[in-house]
Amino acid sequence: MNMDVLNGLFQPKSVAVVGASATLGKIGHTVLLNLQKSQYKGGIFPINPKSDEILGFKCYGNVLDVQDPIDAAIITVPAKFVSQIIDECGEKGVKGLLVITSGFSEVGLVDLEQELVAKAHSYGMRLLGPNIVGVLSNSDDFNGSFAPFLPFKGSASLVSQSGALLIGIDAQTYTRGIGFDKLISIGNMSDVNFADTIEWLDQDKNTFCISLYVEGLKDGRRVIEVGRKTSKPIVALKSGVSAHGAAAAASHTGSLAGTSKIYKSAFAQAGIIQAEDLDNLFDRTLVLTLQPPMKGENVLIITNGGGVGVLATDSAEKFGIPLKFAPPDLQEELKKYMPSFGSAINPVDLTGMAGEGWYHDTVKIGFQHKWVDGLVILYCETAMTDPLGIAKSIKKAVDSTGIKDKPIVVSFVGGERSDKAMRWLVENGIPAYGGPDVALNAIGALKEYAKIRMDTLDAPAKFDDVDRDEALKVINFARNVGRDSLTELESKQVFKAYGLPVTYAKIATSEDEAVSFAEEIGFPLVMKIVSLDILHKSDAGGVKVDVNSVEDVRKFYNEILKNAKAYKEDAEIIGVVIQEMAPWGTEVILGSVNDSTFGPTLMFGLGGIFVEVLKDVTFRVAPFSKKQAKEMLNEIQGAPILAGIRGEKPRDREALADTICRYANMIYDLHDEISESDANPVLVYDEGDGLKVADARILLTKK
Amino acid sequence: MNMDVLNGLFQPKSVAVVGASATLGKIGHTVLLNLQKSQYKGGIFPINPKSDEILGFKCYGNVLDVQDPIDAAIITVPAKFVSQIIDECGEKGVKGLLVITSGFSEVGLVDLEQELVAKAHSYGMRLLGPNIVGVLSNSDDFNGSFAPFLPFKGSASLVSQSGALLIGIDAQTYTRGIGFDKLISIGNMSDVNFADTIEWLDQDKNTFCISLYVEGLKDGRRVIEVGRKTSKPIVALKSGVSAHGAAAAASHTGSLAGTSKIYKSAFAQAGIIQAEDLDNLFDRTLVLTLQPPMKGENVLIITNGGGVGVLATDSAEKFGIPLKFAPPDLQEELKKYMPSFGSAINPVDLTGMAGEGWYHDTVKIGFQHKWVDGLVILYCETAMTDPLGIAKSIKKAVDSTGIKDKPIVVSFVGGERSDKAMRWLVENGIPAYGGPDVALNAIGALKEYAKIRMDTLDAPAKFDDVDRDEALKVINFARNVGRDSLTELESKQVFKAYGLPVTYAKIATSEDEAVSFAEEIGFPLVMKIVSLDILHKSDAGGVKVDVNSVEDVRKFYNEILKNAKAYKEDAEIIGVVIQEMAPWGTEVILGSVNDSTFGPTLMFGLGGIFVEVLKDVTFRVAPFSKKQAKEMLNEIQGAPILAGIRGEKPRDREALADTICRYANMIYDLHDEISESDANPVLVYDEGDGLKVADARILLTKK
Repeated sequence: MNMDVLNGLFQPKSVAVVGASATLGKIGHTVLLNLQKSQYKGGIFPINPKSDEILGFKCYGNVLDVQDPIDAAIITVPAKFVSQIIDECGEKGVKGLLVITSGFSEVGLVDLEQELVAKAHSYGMRLLGPNIVGVLSNSDDFNGSFAPFLPFKGSASLVSQSGALLIGIDAQTYTRGIGFDKLISIGNMSDVNFADTIEWLDQDKNTFCISLYVEGLKDGRRVIEVGRKTSKPIVALKSGVSAHGAAAAASHTGSLAGTSKIYKSAFAQAGIIQAEDLDNLFDRTLVLTLQPPMKGENVLIITNGGGVGVLATDSAEKFGIPLKFAPPDLQEELKKYMPSFGSAINPVDLTGMAGEGWYHDTVKIGFQHKWVDGLVILYCETAMTDPLGIAKSIKKAVDSTGIKDKPIVVSFVGGERSDKAMRWLVENGIPAYGGPDVALNAIGALKEYAKIRMDTLDAPAKFDDVDRDEALKVINFARNVGRDSLTELESKQVFKAYGLPVTYAKIATSEDEAVSFAEEIGFPLVMKIVSLDILHKSDAGGVKVDVNSVEDVRKFYNEILKNAKAYKEDAEIIGVVIQEMAPWGTEVILGSVNDSTFGPTLMFGLGGIFVEVLKDVTFRVAPFSKKQAKEMLNEIQGAPILAGIRGEKPRDREALADTICRYANMIYDLHDEISESDANPVLVYDEGDGLKVADARILLTKK
Repeated sequence: MNMDVLNGLFQPKSVAVVGASATLGKIGHTVLLNLQKSQYKGGIFPINPKSDEILGFKCYGNVLDVQDPIDAAIITVPAKFVSQIIDECGEKGVKGLLVITSGFSEVGLVDLEQELVAKAHSYGMRLLGPNIVGVLSNSDDFNGSFAPFLPFKGSASLVSQSGALLIGIDAQTYTRGIGFDKLISIGNMSDVNFADTIEWLDQDKNTFCISLYVEGLKDGRRVIEVGRKTSKPIVALKSGVSAHGAAAAASHTGSLAGTSKIYKSAFAQAGIIQAEDLDNLFDRTLVLTLQPPMKGENVLIITNGGGVGVLATDSAEKFGIPLKFAPPDLQEELKKYMPSFGSAINPVDLTGMAGEGWYHDTVKIGFQHKWVDGLVILYCETAMTDPLGIAKSIKKAVDSTGIKDKPIVVSFVGGERSDKAMRWLVENGIPAYGGPDVALNAIGALKEYAKIRMDTLDAPAKFDDVDRDEALKVINFARNVGRDSLTELESKQVFKAYGLPVTYAKIATSEDEAVSFAEEIGFPLVMKIVSLDILHKSDAGGVKVDVNSVEDVRKFYNEILKNAKAYKEDAEIIGVVIQEMAPWGTEVILGSVNDSTFGPTLMFGLGGIFVEVLKDVTFRVAPFSKKQAKEMLNEIQGAPILAGIRGEKPRDREALADTICRYANMIYDLHDEISESDANPVLVYDEGDGLKVADARILLTKK
């Protein structure tokens, strides 16, 4: 990516405001006024052929009239003039276009929007928007937007797909006291998208945490790639997770929303932490901006009130960091600095009598102790203590240890005095929240961050024994005879080429052939009708299991054909599969879709009621590591079944993980060919005994 | 309950401060100072034999020295003096004792605490605490506590089991702008408990919503009774929900009965709405104080930003009120008052151009429309609009309709201007929140409130065909022979007495008897070992199913006895059950525990992996209505199984609900006798075909 061009967009040294206006209330006026109010130091060039001067700035008829170089053009003219402006900007050598103007893909004019992008690219320019609020940057004193002011100063940067929300958040940064360096409105994402912006923010020295409001990605797979490489925490609020919400989002931005389950996995694969709601986006942004990841799982809580201690304990469990007892030596040490009727177990209850001294001493001891991976300090405001004094004692204790690679998070339950103390803490690098549960959610985010970062280090599984040509041969044969789906047997051939353990099978087209194949494969056998016109083979009486003799092979061969004809008179019948009968095992399902946002994506779940009643499935964007495949096995509710319940042996999870990775590699490798597929059921046996794909289906992409 | 005595406690006309002190910082000083600062109009009598006057109040050596009547005594003297003080208060005719003093049951001195209560009762007094912060009441200008000031004025009342949290919350009421009339610290609940306090607050004319912070109830069943009768909304934050092992319980049901699941059901049965965390307790308290219940399920959202609209749509689904499309006539009407590029579908998107007029008109139309059961108004702060103006236009529109039985909730995403506008809305009776999701959660609480209130109207199911004497006869027989558990057959006899459909069975003690019973009952049969020393009959080779002939009865009779001896040599064997073999059906489990808080409580779940892997069970405190029993069937994840999946017929849910109610009545009726029980499996057949209890177990209470 050309960072210089993106610098021109996000950190311009000079800007033209195309459509600058002298009329108060017009966007072309507001943007110019905002540049002025934010004390932007770069060149400001209003473009308006009808004015000589606006707000004290000399006006130009055209960007070409400006002598100085122009990094960015902020375009506010009506939609119909934008194309011509882009030509002029291109000739002028502008780098970045911030197109505030709306009335493009969001009202259905997709082609018009794409023409603008093509034109911009032809000049080597990049385009942000259209339909944006603009870009705001504290470190550049740059408010290139129609949002009224720069956000509360800080080190996070927000990228928002909703303009109105960005403006609302801008104002909220002050009342929440959560600071941002940049706010970037990403609009219709016709050109510059989330991946580009994340990549740019990763190298921006004023951004410590990247915060996203996402309605729908257009560049899912690149976001994963870029996210994995990013050195900074990324946290995202994804909206449109409900069915109705997805519909609303689609009508809003013109982008397609994938299912929330796929997004959830894809974000994790991209190293992106998810936020639950708007509050949570702010809360997690704050902690990820200020504190390091939590590398272990031992959280120590120190409190002056039992009530908040219990609430925090509940929350610790809820957010995946259940409390453990503090080790005896830590308890002993803590007890020296607290009253005898307090508790040092965890939560450490200093009691309502706790003052600055006890907080200082116990925080210091706790933070230094090697068992402690993260510290949560709770305080209920009392009349006898000064919240600011408590805050300062906490900060002093932390500083005195010199430790910088462990997180600390604080919650004060109180009024104005506590709010001031918490602001002081935040200014001094310690995130503080009004509710104990919020503090635990925050430190939970730091634990997630540590895990998710570790996961991004894993390379996708690789296999040397794959025969891609064989798979393509099967697919091309089907295509050549005009089909866009494979038969079960063909599907299994493709699976086999990628090393998936399929049941051995052959298609018989006569009774004698059936017998000869049966003798070749050996009993017991399964026999199934092969017809692209019959999807539900069992319903059609087209399946016989546990076939044990030559006589039965003959009998069933004819019976199956008769049933099929009775079921669907004009069905075109290819033959009858004679198939190895896999011994029964635990039924699992693998499947794939070519997700419109993320491309080839694998689904895994247990069969039977788990998938049919509970929809107990999990996803990964392909390809991925074997460690991820193993995590998939643990993510489903039915995980204990695979681990072995009621004294049963564990299933062969190692082999299953291997198969999952092979499947993922197959759909990635063949994503131009396979649109959907499934292996259902896959029968998984005891540990060491492997598994068998008993049925398979592949639908081809339309070409 | 004697309301006059409780009035003396919560709304005293005069108070003595026993242990009043002239020393700044002592609790006996702080309380007196707080009474003075809160401008309490009643008589204030400091009791301290060593002082003549404190803070300008005449001091008394003893409550008996006071000539005027004393309603309440606030006791702050050390624990060892409290008993004597209670005697003096009793003689004086004090009504209520607010015992701030700590050092009783919370440090293990349970007996001492109970003596105080007994003494108080002997004088007709009630005791709040010990170990409390005190009682605060805005409407009485009464701060009878050591919390530093009265809370922000409002119409909710909070009862807190944590003192430190109450003080913290007291201060937070100001920064949150959420008003309370009373804050009541309930401490150790040695006498006055949650049920008493709820009952009193229900008749308090200054309380519109009862808000609870609960760590553990002592009077669970009375809370349910009182809660059901209460005319005001009750909302509770329950802490201590994390896995504090449901460990040592003997039976399956016992181990599944995590306290938080039972609390959840019990609160619902009590008509109490639950809060998720501290923020949520405040947010739900506010909405329940200001707005009526939402009686239908049609929420209309009006917004000026698509982004918050999508977030709200997601939240609507999350909080159980998924959005629907607005009906065409409403859309038509709305479209007259919004720009053509907006959307009237729902959310109604007025676009960023929306001003006061559009908000006013669409709010008015929406609120008036009969399809709309509740309204959520969202607003993202913009530079062009005045949040206070928007707020006022919303209020004006609502008022103009004259409608008072539909709720409205608001969310403004913005800065200080928005915060001020939201404060104005709250002061004018419209709850407003900084996040769209919070607004949806709030209106969700009003929907829950409507449902939960309807549910409390249902009377428990009643049955006339119950034979309690027969059940007691079986139980007493077992007790008389020194047992504290019943055999399977005895358990079934008790179940049968309460009308549960059990499989017919008899115990054979000889091979010939086995044959004769078999012929009486008819084939196929099940045969099982009967021994109190063998709990896991299958493991012991003590079960034979599908027994079809007299020869097999003879063979298996001996085999079972041999296996049992081999399994446990010294097992005392009662005989072999010859039992009707119920045809196979959908396996469900019913069970009961005598919960230490709520008493007899019933569990229901599907059998097999649903209970073993997924812990997919639900609870109700017994007894309850048939409607509740039917809701239990829908609450479990496996509910679709009962409804019939894969084209299967629905199970006989009517019969199952009937059996559940009978079971609940049984454990309620016999709660002095039955400590735990289960019916596992219960086999449920197709609709109309009923069900059968195939195995049963009852453990008796120790006497």
